[in-house]
Amino acid sequence: MTYSLDSIVAWAKRRAFAFPWSDIYGWLANAWDLGPYGAQLRKNILDAWWKHFVQERQDMVGLDASILMNPKVWEASGHVSSFSDPLVDCRKCKYRDRADKLIEDHIAKNKLTLDEIKDKIWADSLTPEAWTFDQQTAFLSEFKVKCPKCGSCDWTEPKKFNLMFKTQQWVIDWEWKDIYLRPETAQWIFVNFKNILDTTRMRIPFWVAQVGKSFRNEITPGNFLFRVREFEQMEIEFFCENDEKKWLEWLQNWKDTCEAWWIEKIWINKDKLRFREHDPKELAFYSKWTWDVEYLFPWGWWELQWIAYRTDYDLQQHMKFSWRDMQYTDPMTGARYVPHCIEPSWGLTRAVLTAMIDAYDEEEYTNGNWEKETRTVAHFHKNIAPIKFAILPLVKKDEKQVEIAEKIFHDLSKDYFCEYDDNGAIGKRYRRQDEIWTPFCITVDQQSCEDWETVTIRDRDTMEQKRIKISEIADYIN
Amino acid sequence: MTYSLDSIVAWAKRRAFAFPWSDIYGWLANAWDLGPYGAQLRKNILDAWWKHFVQERQDMVGLDASILMNPKVWEASGHVSSFSDPLVDCRKCKYRDRADKLIEDHIAKNKLTLDEIKDKIWADSLTPEAWTFDQQTAFLSEFKVKCPKCGSCDWTEPKKFNLMFKTQQWVIDWEWKDIYLRPETAQWIFVNFKNILDTTRMRIPFWVAQVGKSFRNEITPGNFLFRVREFEQMEIEFFCENDEKKWLEWLQNWKDTCEAWWIEKIWINKDKLRFREHDPKELAFYSKWTWDVEYLFPWGWWELQWIAYRTDYDLQQHMKFSWRDMQYTDPMTGARYVPHCIEPSWGLTRAVLTAMIDAYDEEEYTNGNWEKETRTVAHFHKNIAPIKFAILPLVKKDEKQVEIAEKIFHDLSKDYFCEYDDNGAIGKRYRRQDEIWTPFCITVDQQSCEDWETVTIRDRDTMEQKRIKISEIADYIN
Repeated sequence: MTYSLDSIVAWAKRRAFAFPWSDIYGWLANAWDLGPYGAQLRKNILDAWWKHFVQERQDMVGLDASILMNPKVWEASGHVSSFSDPLVDCRKCKYRDRADKLIEDHIAKNKLTLDEIKDKIWADSLTPEAWTFDQQTAFLSEFKVKCPKCGSCDWTEPKKFNLMFKTQQWVIDWEWKDIYLRPETAQWIFVNFKNILDTTRMRIPFWVAQVGKSFRNEITPGNFLFRVREFEQMEIEFFCENDEKKWLEWLQNWKDTCEAWWIEKIWINKDKLRFREHDPKELAFYSKWTWDVEYLFPWGWWELQWIAYRTDYDLQQHMKFSWRDMQYTDPMTGARYVPHCIEPSWGLTRAVLTAMIDAYDEEEYTNGNWEKETRTVAHFHKNIAPIKFAILPLVKKDEKQVEIAEKIFHDLSKDYFCEYDDNGAIGKRYRRQDEIWTPFCITVDQQSCEDWETVTIRDRDTMEQKRIKISEIADYIN
Repeated sequence: MTYSLDSIVAWAKRRAFAFPWSDIYGWLANAWDLGPYGAQLRKNILDAWWKHFVQERQDMVGLDASILMNPKVWEASGHVSSFSDPLVDCRKCKYRDRADKLIEDHIAKNKLTLDEIKDKIWADSLTPEAWTFDQQTAFLSEFKVKCPKCGSCDWTEPKKFNLMFKTQQWVIDWEWKDIYLRPETAQWIFVNFKNILDTTRMRIPFWVAQVGKSFRNEITPGNFLFRVREFEQMEIEFFCENDEKKWLEWLQNWKDTCEAWWIEKIWINKDKLRFREHDPKELAFYSKWTWDVEYLFPWGWWELQWIAYRTDYDLQQHMKFSWRDMQYTDPMTGARYVPHCIEPSWGLTRAVLTAMIDAYDEEEYTNGNWEKETRTVAHFHKNIAPIKFAILPLVKKDEKQVEIAEKIFHDLSKDYFCEYDDNGAIGKRYRRQDEIWTPFCITVDQQSCEDWETVTIRDRDTMEQKRIKISEIADYIN
């Protein structure tokens, strides 16, 4: 079942997954902070990723590099000249928007086909992002695209708007320098390629992973955590030989690996995942082929991850701009070459969003009085559920119950993220844990005080309760 | 034994703990990236902190908020008006520096005492940071402080230089807005105070933790990772009643807790840690008392962490600037009040640096031929050591050895960060692992291939090797 984004956002706000950004000061919409459960969900997804892709592999190392980067990096990478959106202004009311977005909306709304468009503006795709400025200008006037604010149709020519955030840094030679917040984490891996080669014993082929925040000054952020200006990426660069046959093998291998990770570790619904190859027109200028992993969001299929073949573009560019040798010498054959790169890249922020959307459910069940009720649940895999155990003393003023409950919290929290909740009727407390899909609720009651030995443990799926010995909790859950 | 910072930096660069920032482009010194081992060391310290302070406590929740923040937050907090350094220019050569730093160096170099200073400039402390601009100006001319670049003594008046990085964000009402990169993570906790209260069942007293990067446009970064412009903090805010007696109890409790964490979890040498109370003159304007945890760095005692009593200043300010009610209602008594805050705050980047400095050692030992040799070691606690096991097939071309070694890597890496190293003589491989203080080296040799059952395991401390069954590795290390 698919739920509206609104119900998911409402649940996320109510249950401390996300808070609107600097809420109390209003102003500047479409940004979010992760609340207590959201922060833990993010940490669990990140840890699952790091464990699977970095820790469990012999041929991968991690890196943790800066957000503020030398501007030369972005000149070399092409971001200074090309990382931009085409903006148009309405001449009447000064409304400003992305030309490609206005056109995309117009095409969707009027269900235009390529045949209806191509003769008028010589477009060969329905992807306005890939069109030239002339084609975008032609479309806006030929198809009379209206300003969403004032309804007139009088647009300026598109202008490039660079998406990188710029700031100024004080430099030791007593000057200010313009400097950028990174719009992607990948470039640091290229810049540090030689350092990694010199200080580790990695030999081609090998992988380098990096996780961290990136920043893009999006004109139109939106859809909750989907498109935000500040987001986290988990990126991997694979350094390899110039050998087409091997790339296709690795691609297949990584498509399988990534799909399995989403399904088995994050528990994403298989039917809502698909691979889509980029049309040559959508390809980033440095890439020869790219595959997107797409998820069926409430607003359609969109990108969740990609696997891109970046050729040797980045290392060649950094070699050119830095005058440093980026070649690799094969220790067996002595051959020297600039390695090629394949990049599997995930949005961590987007993974958090997807995990929430995919897990959210409103479930009918029959309560103890044989009445039908609905419970909101979030079907998280137990590995990523923010809380693993809720420890619930039935009566919060009963000192013995509290003592036993605190002892259980103390022991279990050494290995698991737990929550102690002594507030309200037990049924309500179960509902609260169901909403965040805590695998197990442990209730300490009168009988626990009498035998000092047993508690009830409740399973989230079946809602069944079982009485077990405290000493057997660990065995029970494994 | 204390080693020079230079030898520690050289080791950190050689052994992939840290790389100079955008090395290949030169330019902009005193910034660093964490290489593969540094990134893992950071992750281990962070995880140890999160587990101890957040996971294992009933009364603490986490938060994960943005780096880019609403400028109003910084107006309310006082950062826009007060978070600045006093800068002076040399009128002769245009050299620019911090007035307080020039004075501090001059005092240290000439071993001036408070008695020698106080009558001339009416100073009542040896902390120029706490002086007025007039006192700083007076000192520079009275004591003829020379320009380090041209030697003249002709300084301008000090001017305030704000340390926050500023950038511009595109806003939905089609305007640019100035916006700041956060110089501390704490403010988000205050801004989200009501959200946390409304969506969790936290009741005062409770704690909120947050980890993340902060940015300060330091004029004089330096000392490796000690003072950098981009760094990570681990901050906690404790919301409590207005009750002096309780604060002092909590302070004592947290002093013990923090000291124990540094010593037991990060394994910092007890003799190199001390608590120091801030002189009233050094106190931040919002604080009534602050204790620093200091470490004896190669360049002296400096701050590693602090515990500051911030009063109700922050919540009062945000209440004033946002017009939102920040009061808390006690569920038992019905009393309404603005909570007071105590803040234990750690530098994560500084913790990584301290762990490296504290662990670094050059150790003499007697080798197999009864010769004295020196090995570089880093005495990391096994919980924070970047690699837990090195798996070493003795002969890399022996297929059987490789098969066994890969199987062991596969099994152990499910639970531990391991390294597979088949490169070079075994003695050299041991040395490499000693340098990063890997607790255990597991060597697969000819006998392993014969019995398919045993390997040797080497202890880093004693350098002793023992033959054990593969199936017993897990038991052996526990």
